[in-house]
Amino acid sequence: MKPDNTASPPLTIASLRARYRGRSLTPAQLVDMIAARTVGDDPHRVWIRALTRDEMMHYVDALEGKGPDTLPLYGVPFAIKDNIDLAGVPTTAGCPAYAYTPQKSAAVVERLIAAGAIPVGKTNLDQFATGLSGQRSPHGACRNALDARYASGGSSSGSAVAVALGLAAFSLGTDTAGSGRVPAAFHGLVGLKPTKGVLSTLGVVPACKSLDCVSIFAQTAHDAQQVFDVARGIAAGDPYARAWTPPRARPLTQRDGAPTLRGVRFGVPRAAQLEFFGDTSYAQAFEAAQARLRDVGAQLVEIDFEPFLDAARLLYEGPFVAERLAAIRPFFEQHPDALHPVIRTIIGGAAKWSAADLFTAQDRLAELRMRADTVWQHIDAILMPTSATTATVDELEADPIRVNSRFGYYTNFVNLLDLSALAVPAGRCTVGAHSGLPFGVTFVGRAHEDAALLQLAYAWLGEDEQSQARVSAQADSASVSASRSASVPASAVAPASSSAPASVSTPASASSTSSSASASIRVAVVGAHLRGEPLNAQLTDRNARLLEATTTAPTYRLYALPAAANGGVAKPGLVRVPADGAAIALEVWDMPLAAYGSFVAAIPAPLGIGTLTLADGSTVQGFLCESSALDGATDITSFGGWRAYRASLAAR
Amino acid sequence: MKPDNTASPPLTIASLRARYRGRSLTPAQLVDMIAARTVGDDPHRVWIRALTRDEMMHYVDALEGKGPDTLPLYGVPFAIKDNIDLAGVPTTAGCPAYAYTPQKSAAVVERLIAAGAIPVGKTNLDQFATGLSGQRSPHGACRNALDARYASGGSSSGSAVAVALGLAAFSLGTDTAGSGRVPAAFHGLVGLKPTKGVLSTLGVVPACKSLDCVSIFAQTAHDAQQVFDVARGIAAGDPYARAWTPPRARPLTQRDGAPTLRGVRFGVPRAAQLEFFGDTSYAQAFEAAQARLRDVGAQLVEIDFEPFLDAARLLYEGPFVAERLAAIRPFFEQHPDALHPVIRTIIGGAAKWSAADLFTAQDRLAELRMRADTVWQHIDAILMPTSATTATVDELEADPIRVNSRFGYYTNFVNLLDLSALAVPAGRCTVGAHSGLPFGVTFVGRAHEDAALLQLAYAWLGEDEQSQARVSAQADSASVSASRSASVPASAVAPASSSAPASVSTPASASSTSSSASASIRVAVVGAHLRGEPLNAQLTDRNARLLEATTTAPTYRLYALPAAANGGVAKPGLVRVPADGAAIALEVWDMPLAAYGSFVAAIPAPLGIGTLTLADGSTVQGFLCESSALDGATDITSFGGWRAYRASLAAR
Repeated sequence: MKPDNTASPPLTIASLRARYRGRSLTPAQLVDMIAARTVGDDPHRVWIRALTRDEMMHYVDALEGKGPDTLPLYGVPFAIKDNIDLAGVPTTAGCPAYAYTPQKSAAVVERLIAAGAIPVGKTNLDQFATGLSGQRSPHGACRNALDARYASGGSSSGSAVAVALGLAAFSLGTDTAGSGRVPAAFHGLVGLKPTKGVLSTLGVVPACKSLDCVSIFAQTAHDAQQVFDVARGIAAGDPYARAWTPPRARPLTQRDGAPTLRGVRFGVPRAAQLEFFGDTSYAQAFEAAQARLRDVGAQLVEIDFEPFLDAARLLYEGPFVAERLAAIRPFFEQHPDALHPVIRTIIGGAAKWSAADLFTAQDRLAELRMRADTVWQHIDAILMPTSATTATVDELEADPIRVNSRFGYYTNFVNLLDLSALAVPAGRCTVGAHSGLPFGVTFVGRAHEDAALLQLAYAWLGEDEQSQARVSAQADSASVSASRSASVPASAVAPASSSAPASVSTPASASSTSSSASASIRVAVVGAHLRGEPLNAQLTDRNARLLEATTTAPTYRLYALPAAANGGVAKPGLVRVPADGAAIALEVWDMPLAAYGSFVAAIPAPLGIGTLTLADGSTVQGFLCESSALDGATDITSFGGWRAYRASLAAR
Repeated sequence: MKPDNTASPPLTIASLRARYRGRSLTPAQLVDMIAARTVGDDPHRVWIRALTRDEMMHYVDALEGKGPDTLPLYGVPFAIKDNIDLAGVPTTAGCPAYAYTPQKSAAVVERLIAAGAIPVGKTNLDQFATGLSGQRSPHGACRNALDARYASGGSSSGSAVAVALGLAAFSLGTDTAGSGRVPAAFHGLVGLKPTKGVLSTLGVVPACKSLDCVSIFAQTAHDAQQVFDVARGIAAGDPYARAWTPPRARPLTQRDGAPTLRGVRFGVPRAAQLEFFGDTSYAQAFEAAQARLRDVGAQLVEIDFEPFLDAARLLYEGPFVAERLAAIRPFFEQHPDALHPVIRTIIGGAAKWSAADLFTAQDRLAELRMRADTVWQHIDAILMPTSATTATVDELEADPIRVNSRFGYYTNFVNLLDLSALAVPAGRCTVGAHSGLPFGVTFVGRAHEDAALLQLAYAWLGEDEQSQARVSAQADSASVSASRSASVPASAVAPASSSAPASVSTPASASSTSSSASASIRVAVVGAHLRGEPLNAQLTDRNARLLEATTTAPTYRLYALPAAANGGVAKPGLVRVPADGAAIALEVWDMPLAAYGSFVAAIPAPLGIGTLTLADGSTVQGFLCESSALDGATDITSFGGWRAYRASLAAR
């Protein structure tokens, strides 16, 4: 294996599929190429156990009669962190004395293999997935693929390095406190830490059972999404399984058919709460990332990061470490010498905490979660550095616990607070000691907002990623549409389907009844429901969020209805007209679908809910008025909207 | 106070309201009567602190200018367990040394007082709500209201006795492991243990913070529901608050307009898993209850109770007790002698458990929850005895921990498994040692199924309860529509309110967002949604029921829209007209409000939802069409309806 092989073009799912389709490559040829590189030296310490050519060919043989058009991950090579079971190959969790050979693959691995993916090996990790450095392994410190003096990041170290070296198109890690994100940042990769419970942890050696997530490393957000879509699913017998119930992603502004970040609100920790531990390279790189977002029209909103940091402290300074002990307790008590000394120190420290201590900490966490949740009223996602700094292998060996903990400043709290996170590349450091090394940021969302984060990543990563996403999304719609449909903004599919029967056409019917509680709907308001107007609480009481203020297409007229006929409340009536229409000001709000029924039910005659066409040609449900009620009403179209009309009355 | 005062007619919300309306009683007179009974002897040890007449009059004064038609709990007296704050009165939790005087009432108490209820006193309890007997109080063992030799049950002992003695129409308890159900069973009362987090525990002394529920004792299920509807709501600053998101209750079969239990599937523990600790009175009474259910056509389905019992054992034999220590740790460590000796023994036992033990138990609980959840595939509710047996005060004093634990055999697991539960009377024991004492059963549902359990209770408790509920529902529609809407079909109140402003008018707006899922809405369909037509499944898939086939008022015209503009589906458009209208055939369906949003969201332009006037002058929401879409449409008004028009086409 050559240390400089990162110069080869990145191995992506899309590029592989194109080659398989064009018959310029077969899975068997690919396996030959990978085997040629994984046999022999392993200077980066990627592998605990690379599969042999024959072992990989077993999976290739199972693809007989299939192809890139029938299997979403046909012939896609992937690496597996060695705390995740692959049938017939030992699982070590980085501790040879702990090893066992599973009969059955982990639930996620089974799903990926069934979709055509080919496992290539079990990767090195911080022992028992305890660490963020990649240095705590009896198989040797995992070396950064881009500069072998540097740490790979951990605990999913080998999984990130395998993808960075082009030995796999994607890989599985695990992420309890940052292990799926820090190594992504150190390698310029995408690292998806999905919502807890959505990828099954059945067949994964637990670190902290209630927090562990299976994570995904990939070259592009689109690849991560495809793997996520295949890997998701409730495995029978998994007590921590959760159905994925994504809310509708806020649709991104489009420019030339591609999403942009214009108007997206990113929450950024206050300056005093940012921490880089003196690393000017990282501090400057984060400044640059923010500047780039401002340039494309995103809003950066300062948030109070204290509840997040307090939660992180609870994890590292409190009784939560005892979950690591509980996970391997008999082994730990019987074979203390089998553990890496740093891991033994960390996990051994758990014995001092009592059950009452833990209840106190869990109660405190509930309070912090409540406080942290308030930030989502004002932002679409949190933006932060993925790691606060980086370090060389030598620096880590000199001070293994303290330096490691710096990598987790922005990652530790995420699973404790039940959030989703996506680490994405953000260029390279341009100043200071780490100049030339990659820098990464993480988008953080609430539970189940994984797809929204991936949408942000498409826009953030720019044209290449987007065009790839578009091409591939079109090509794959047949094979993965069932699993991917929930992650596509409903507005993106509405125009194409608006002429189909109502039962299958609109965004809302695409979400099944059972998932409707977390879905949402855009609704346009034109009068008493506008922000600051008397009935606005009917929106905010239902947790609706203002998406935008815009206008209708120029095909409407607006009337002031007689107040006497409406319980004394002045209201406008909006009517679509065949001719002589105008654009009327409105607000588009996003409302949970489960609350929409009660909202509609409260609308009195002559108003109702229909479909409005907006200025940009898109459609949205919103208030309309029965034409028959316009007798005695005043035509106020010339004011352009209800607020302007009301202001004119006040000015009289 | 006379020991035989239970012979007086039960004090119910409905009976009070009738007397207030008829002006045969005023809240001040009621307070005089209650004060006369609570001043002086307290042989049952109901009170830790009864309010004085003057204190109660403070709340009566606040009702000035209000009445039973403006406040849902106008002048309704209620008792408060003394671990729940009432502003200005000490909270002791049954431990005088722990007492503090809150400035502010607990969130639920505030809501009840705001709805017109009058607090009458703070009730006796098992200290720190630890126990199911009612005997662990420095204020003396709480005596059963029906036979003072017997235990009251606990820990919400005085709250149950106060209602049983007619000193309050309802009362608040707390329920962590059965404390809101066992005392109900021992007094022939209804005891609602709502879904965790739905009634705020802000201002409640914690027992186990993550499990504690505020519970409700009442004479009837209808009263319990009214209190539940008022008391519910998210309190700011409550980390354990959860929005109530009820699934729609399976509609019960009706007979003579009253619900019956015909066809309802009750899960009953296998015979070998039932336990009465040798109590033949209780064993026979449970047999009788099952026979009665079979007689009315309910199905009894055997379930495997093992996961439930295992969860209960975890609570009593494992580290979960440490949450009780965590709740009062500094006090416990500084004042061990201030505790009741039994409580000191129990809570002191928590010190032996480590944080790792607790993680192991929480992991085990996750597994048991997964196993227990499988029973819901086959049943509508679990039916079980509320307590396995009863006991005299002397028996409890002789063996306080073991006898107490028998009361919890069927209650301990409920909050651990995140279930809702409703204890209901089931007649009296007719054989054995406890002959003549009341027996109670509990209906158990999943989280958020509280309303479904109350529906079962209406049918179970029979004609008296039902007729009361019906009478009261009719009489009270104005005053309590906001709080009770979830239990009243929306159709019952729609006509009266249809002309009021949207913000307060319709059934749906009356039900708050949080309660909307159990309410329903009438919706009129005129075309492809009619029974037998292509889109009818959009109604039936949402559990909508056909209420009637009727017509509009004679003020509409019907058009056949061009099919080409509607994805090839032929659809009618209904439009209200100022003149030359006709009556158009339609069907009125009743749809769960929670499903209505997704239904409306699926309606494509030019159709929408507005308010239709029916032949009888009443109004209902239903399909309308934008007038602007009628260019090119065919006027089919003369056919009188969509079906007749379609039949004419087929006949051509």
